[in-house]
Amino acid sequence: MSTDRGERRARAAEALREIGAERLLVTNLLNVRYLTGFTGSNGALLLAADGSAVLVTDGRYRDQAAAETEDVRVHVAPTLLGPAAELAPDEQWAVETHHLTVDQHAELGAELTHPPIAAGRLVERLRAVKDAGEVELLRQACAISVEALQRTWDGPLLGRSERDIAIGLERLMVDLGAEAAGFSTICAAGENSAIPHHAPTDRVVERGDLLKIDFGARVGGYHADCTRTVVMGPSAEWQREIHAAVRQAQALGVEALRVDATPADIDAAVRQDLEDTGWLEHFTTGLGHGVGLQIHEDPFFGPTRTGRLSPRTVLTMEPGVYLVGRGGVRIEDTVCVTPGDPEVLTPAPTDLLEIG
Amino acid sequence: MSTDRGERRARAAEALREIGAERLLVTNLLNVRYLTGFTGSNGALLLAADGSAVLVTDGRYRDQAAAETEDVRVHVAPTLLGPAAELAPDEQWAVETHHLTVDQHAELGAELTHPPIAAGRLVERLRAVKDAGEVELLRQACAISVEALQRTWDGPLLGRSERDIAIGLERLMVDLGAEAAGFSTICAAGENSAIPHHAPTDRVVERGDLLKIDFGARVGGYHADCTRTVVMGPSAEWQREIHAAVRQAQALGVEALRVDATPADIDAAVRQDLEDTGWLEHFTTGLGHGVGLQIHEDPFFGPTRTGRLSPRTVLTMEPGVYLVGRGGVRIEDTVCVTPGDPEVLTPAPTDLLEIG
Repeated sequence: MSTDRGERRARAAEALREIGAERLLVTNLLNVRYLTGFTGSNGALLLAADGSAVLVTDGRYRDQAAAETEDVRVHVAPTLLGPAAELAPDEQWAVETHHLTVDQHAELGAELTHPPIAAGRLVERLRAVKDAGEVELLRQACAISVEALQRTWDGPLLGRSERDIAIGLERLMVDLGAEAAGFSTICAAGENSAIPHHAPTDRVVERGDLLKIDFGARVGGYHADCTRTVVMGPSAEWQREIHAAVRQAQALGVEALRVDATPADIDAAVRQDLEDTGWLEHFTTGLGHGVGLQIHEDPFFGPTRTGRLSPRTVLTMEPGVYLVGRGGVRIEDTVCVTPGDPEVLTPAPTDLLEIG
Repeated sequence: MSTDRGERRARAAEALREIGAERLLVTNLLNVRYLTGFTGSNGALLLAADGSAVLVTDGRYRDQAAAETEDVRVHVAPTLLGPAAELAPDEQWAVETHHLTVDQHAELGAELTHPPIAAGRLVERLRAVKDAGEVELLRQACAISVEALQRTWDGPLLGRSERDIAIGLERLMVDLGAEAAGFSTICAAGENSAIPHHAPTDRVVERGDLLKIDFGARVGGYHADCTRTVVMGPSAEWQREIHAAVRQAQALGVEALRVDATPADIDAAVRQDLEDTGWLEHFTTGLGHGVGLQIHEDPFFGPTRTGRLSPRTVLTMEPGVYLVGRGGVRIEDTVCVTPGDPEVLTPAPTDLLEIG
């Protein structure tokens, strides 16, 4: 990955030159990790317009920073911003104003000759298009997730609590090679499946319940994100109806994840499909999001999102229909945009399985 | 806990009046949780000087916010800051400038008549002194942690990897009633024990190794934090020597956690003790930190920290000696300051156990 990281720094430096700045201060730790490989909990990267970089971190991470990075100078100091400013106080800096706090900005401003300019989401935009190594980590995380879901579906499920099932699934992912669950698993049974972001409870899974599981493994820092909804035993008509509507909309959305498509157009098309089937008013969440080092990252869907999809952009596609007090269905895949057909990284069955 | 939260809001409102502001915007989600009980991932609290409060959150959390809070008005909106500003655009706001980003600050400033002033760590300072309900949650988290450590020590340990032991310990905590491990367990064997913040690897535990485990359960959002270092089989002279020095310094530090003591004085006393035994240069981390909803929170130790300890301040005490390439020892307790003797919430044995 080290060469990849050098290329990432070169691309960031190019973007830095385009906005007319000489130094980019990277304080978002995921962006620092992306550009250097450093995984510690305290650090800031100062990138120069020629691509050279200094990582400022504290003494706890001296050895780790040296081991995890390549072609990056490690500068150990008790604090980050003051020592970083001393490295190039007279140059024009750009900072991550969507991440830097007001206090940090003031501290930095006092040390620099020129007020820093806003870099915008410069590094996040680079992160939206994965390189081959990142896609491979996402593939691994997704493969582990799908395998763990299949084993969970093998049961037993009836009579177990949402929480117990969620814990079991997370342990399976780790046993299958994940470094951890990438986020807190949503496991929602029956009426709870209508709550889009339900935290698992002691509610026991019963016959007739919809069972919605939203989960994903993390491998090398990269997140899988997958949701499936099944039914415990024979399904009811209303369950089949909303599941069919979501499945159709989701398939349409996945199919649309192609080079040069825009998130806004895809969002509109999926919503139109749900309107045609009569369920749009019960789709109350976002349609999807980029996924990588962060579980939710650029690009996002929405009516106002601009920009076009590129090869190796990895996103989720996750429409749902939520009937408050009754139940809900969400189907979500992690998908990689390619020059050809979209690559579904989480190819678990999407039909309405009747289990247990 | 709901009455407690009303009292917390009343104390925050009092502090708000003291700094001459009419509204406090709370954007740090842990502070929002502390003041309201809301555990969602998106929300901002607008507290008035009379203690009344409005929680702004998005549609996903409409029901959850209503269920988790009491005497708090829930205002659902697609974004947070603009809708919050509309609630009281002409009043004098105070904001968390150590948390609010530069972009958020600019967005808010455009909506308000008066530029917001800095609230400082107003809520964090309140959080440093726990109420009875918080101490009880910390007690539970610590009790689970100690029990899980004892069972882990019961073995087997020899021949298992650091990572396997860490995973097993985390699962034990959940099985014993924790909602999760509060942070990624540090499990460091042999030479790795000299790395203060070592991420567990495939290194297998062998006879003669020091085995350092830094871990803690989370219960109701509150974190235990405990470290013990044992040796696999008979100990060597150098291991006994550094362990004895750390144990003595740690006991001295715990004993000093009393009402009206200052973190700076305690820090100096423990360092003096390690200097007297000749190991100070190998103590390369901080001495401890407050612990609660966050694993690291106010108050912190250090030579420049002011303020005196109050009853029900909960802190860690964690000196260590780290010999690069050989091994290290850290002993850490979570301790509650009381009107009498300090209450050690993590009373696992601190002597140099020879295990396995």
